[in-house]
Amino acid sequence: MSATVNFLSLVEEDIHAVENLMQQQADGYNPDVGAALSHLLSSGGKRMRPSVTLLVGKMLGSDRQRLVTLSAAIELLHTATLVHDDLIDGALLRRGITTLNAKWSPGATVLTGDFLFACAAKLAADTESVAVMKIFANTLKVIVDGEVAQMFASRCQVNRAAYDQRIYAKTASLFETSARSAAIISPIGENYSEDIARYGYNIGMAFQIVDDILDFTGEQATMGKPVGSDLRQGLVTLPVIFYASEYPEDPAAQMLLDGRCIPEEREINRLVNEVRTGKGIESAMNEAKVYVDKAIAILQRMPASPERQALEEIARYIVARNN
Amino acid sequence: MSATVNFLSLVEEDIHAVENLMQQQADGYNPDVGAALSHLLSSGGKRMRPSVTLLVGKMLGSDRQRLVTLSAAIELLHTATLVHDDLIDGALLRRGITTLNAKWSPGATVLTGDFLFACAAKLAADTESVAVMKIFANTLKVIVDGEVAQMFASRCQVNRAAYDQRIYAKTASLFETSARSAAIISPIGENYSEDIARYGYNIGMAFQIVDDILDFTGEQATMGKPVGSDLRQGLVTLPVIFYASEYPEDPAAQMLLDGRCIPEEREINRLVNEVRTGKGIESAMNEAKVYVDKAIAILQRMPASPERQALEEIARYIVARNN
Repeated sequence: MSATVNFLSLVEEDIHAVENLMQQQADGYNPDVGAALSHLLSSGGKRMRPSVTLLVGKMLGSDRQRLVTLSAAIELLHTATLVHDDLIDGALLRRGITTLNAKWSPGATVLTGDFLFACAAKLAADTESVAVMKIFANTLKVIVDGEVAQMFASRCQVNRAAYDQRIYAKTASLFETSARSAAIISPIGENYSEDIARYGYNIGMAFQIVDDILDFTGEQATMGKPVGSDLRQGLVTLPVIFYASEYPEDPAAQMLLDGRCIPEEREINRLVNEVRTGKGIESAMNEAKVYVDKAIAILQRMPASPERQALEEIARYIVARNN
Repeated sequence: MSATVNFLSLVEEDIHAVENLMQQQADGYNPDVGAALSHLLSSGGKRMRPSVTLLVGKMLGSDRQRLVTLSAAIELLHTATLVHDDLIDGALLRRGITTLNAKWSPGATVLTGDFLFACAAKLAADTESVAVMKIFANTLKVIVDGEVAQMFASRCQVNRAAYDQRIYAKTASLFETSARSAAIISPIGENYSEDIARYGYNIGMAFQIVDDILDFTGEQATMGKPVGSDLRQGLVTLPVIFYASEYPEDPAAQMLLDGRCIPEEREINRLVNEVRTGKGIESAMNEAKVYVDKAIAILQRMPASPERQALEEIARYIVARNN
C-alpha cells in the first residue's frame, strides 16, 4: 500500500544499513549462529520498530551512525524475544518462514535467542549512552515479565485492565523505547523525549490491538496460524472483550465473563465466527484509532519535517494494514 | 577450609549486599519471578566471581556501591546462563537443590533465564560505565557461542585446542570479566586492567580444569551427578586427554583418539575408573597449578594489600577445593 512506501522511502537506505549491522553481529562466532541469524533476518518483517527509531532520530537531528546502531539493537532485541516466544508456543511458522524451533532442537533455539540478546546488549552499549542501556534493560524486564504473567495468569478471563497491561508489556513498551531512545541520543531530544515516548506508546498499543483483530479477521494462509488462535488458547483479547460486553447473553460470552473456559470446540468455532463477522471488531478498531489519533496529536508538537510526516503515516498505516 | 574463610572475611558484608541487590531486582515484577530468584539465590553457591570483583575493586580503590552493583550484575549473568544450561541438559539438581526446570515448565524456565539476563544488563548499566556494558555484552556472546559450539561439535574427540577454547568460553571468560571490569571502574584501574584480566583468565582456566577433575574424583552425592558425567555424554575433558596421551594402548583411549565414541557402557565405566584412580588426573592438576602460579605471579605487580593477599588465597583455593 502507498502509505507503506511513503514512510519507508525516507529510511530505506538506513534500514539496509541496520540489516547489515544485525547480520555482522555473528561474524567471528560459530557459523551455526550466523546461519540462524541469516534465516531470521531473511523473513524481512515489517521493521516497524527500527523505522520509528530512525525517523524520530532524524527528525530530532540525531547522529546517523548511532541511530543505525540503536535501531539494530532494538530489532535484535525484538527478534530474540520472538525466537524464545515461538519456542515456548511451539509455533512452526512466522511471517511465512519456518521458525528456528521447527528446524532446531529446543536447546539450540534457547541459545540462539540468548546470543541475540547479547548482540542487542552489545549494540545498545555501542550507542555510548548509559541512559539508552538502562531503558533497554528495563524494557526487556517488562517484556519478559509480561510473558511470565501471561503464562501464569488464569485463562479465559474477560479482564480489560489485564489486557491493557499485557499488550503494553508485549508490544507498546518496545515501541515506546524505540521512540524514546532515539530522542535520548539527539542533541535536542531532552525537550521531546517524554512526548515522543508517548507517541511510541500509543502506536504500540494500537499495533497490538490491530494484531489481535487480525487474529480473527486475517486469512490463515497470510497469518500462518489458525483464525482465532488466541481464543483457542484461552487468551481473551480486545475483540472478544467487546463482544462479551455487547452480547452478554451469548452462552459462550457468558462463560468467559464468568472466568470459565469454553469446553467445546464447536462453541469456540461459533464464537470465533461471530467475532470474525464484525461483532466486537468495530469497537476494538475504534479503540485502536483513538490511540492512533493521540499519537498523531502528539506529533504536532514536534518540529515539522518530512520525518514527522512519515511518523504520522506509520500511525495511520498501523490501523490500515491487513497483515 | 581456612583458606576460604580468610578470603571471604574481607568481603563478607559486601557479598550480603550483593545478594540483597540481586534479590531486589524482581521487586515490582511478577511474584513468580521473585520466587524463582529466591530459590536460585538460596543455593548459595561459592560466589567466586563476585568475590573476585569485590577484592580487585577494593584493592584498586573502586567505589564500594559501584562494586556491589557490578558484582550483582556478574553473578546474575552467571545465574542466568546456569538456568538455561540446566534446562538444556535436563539437570535436576545443582548445588544440592532442585533446578528451576525440575519444578517448572520449559517455557517458564526459559523466561526466568531471560528475566535474569535483563536484570544483569540493568545492573551493568547501573555502574554508569559504557566500557563495562560492552565487556559484559561481549562476554555473554562468548559464553553462549561456546555453548552452541559444544552443542554442534563432534562428540568423543581428543582435541586439546577445542578443550582450551571451550573452558575459556564456559568459565574463564567471565572470571576475566569479573576482574577486568572491577579495574575499569577504579580510578587507577587503567594501569592494571590488562594484568588483572590475565589474573582472572588464569584462575578461570584453573577453576574449570578442577571442575573437570572433580567430575571424576568427586563423590556422586556431593556433585549431584554421576561420576564421569562429561565422558558419558561424549565430552572429552583434560583428565581424559592426558589419560589418552599417557595410555594410548588402552582400547577405549584409542577409540577416543580416533574420534569414535565408546559404544559399551562397561568400557566407559572401566575408563572412568582408570581416570578416577589418578591416571591423567595428576597431569591435569599440574596444568591447573601452572595457571594458578601464573595468576599469583601477576598479583605481585598489584599494590600490596590484604585484598591482594585474599586474591592469592582464592587462586590457591581453586586447586585445593573438593567441590
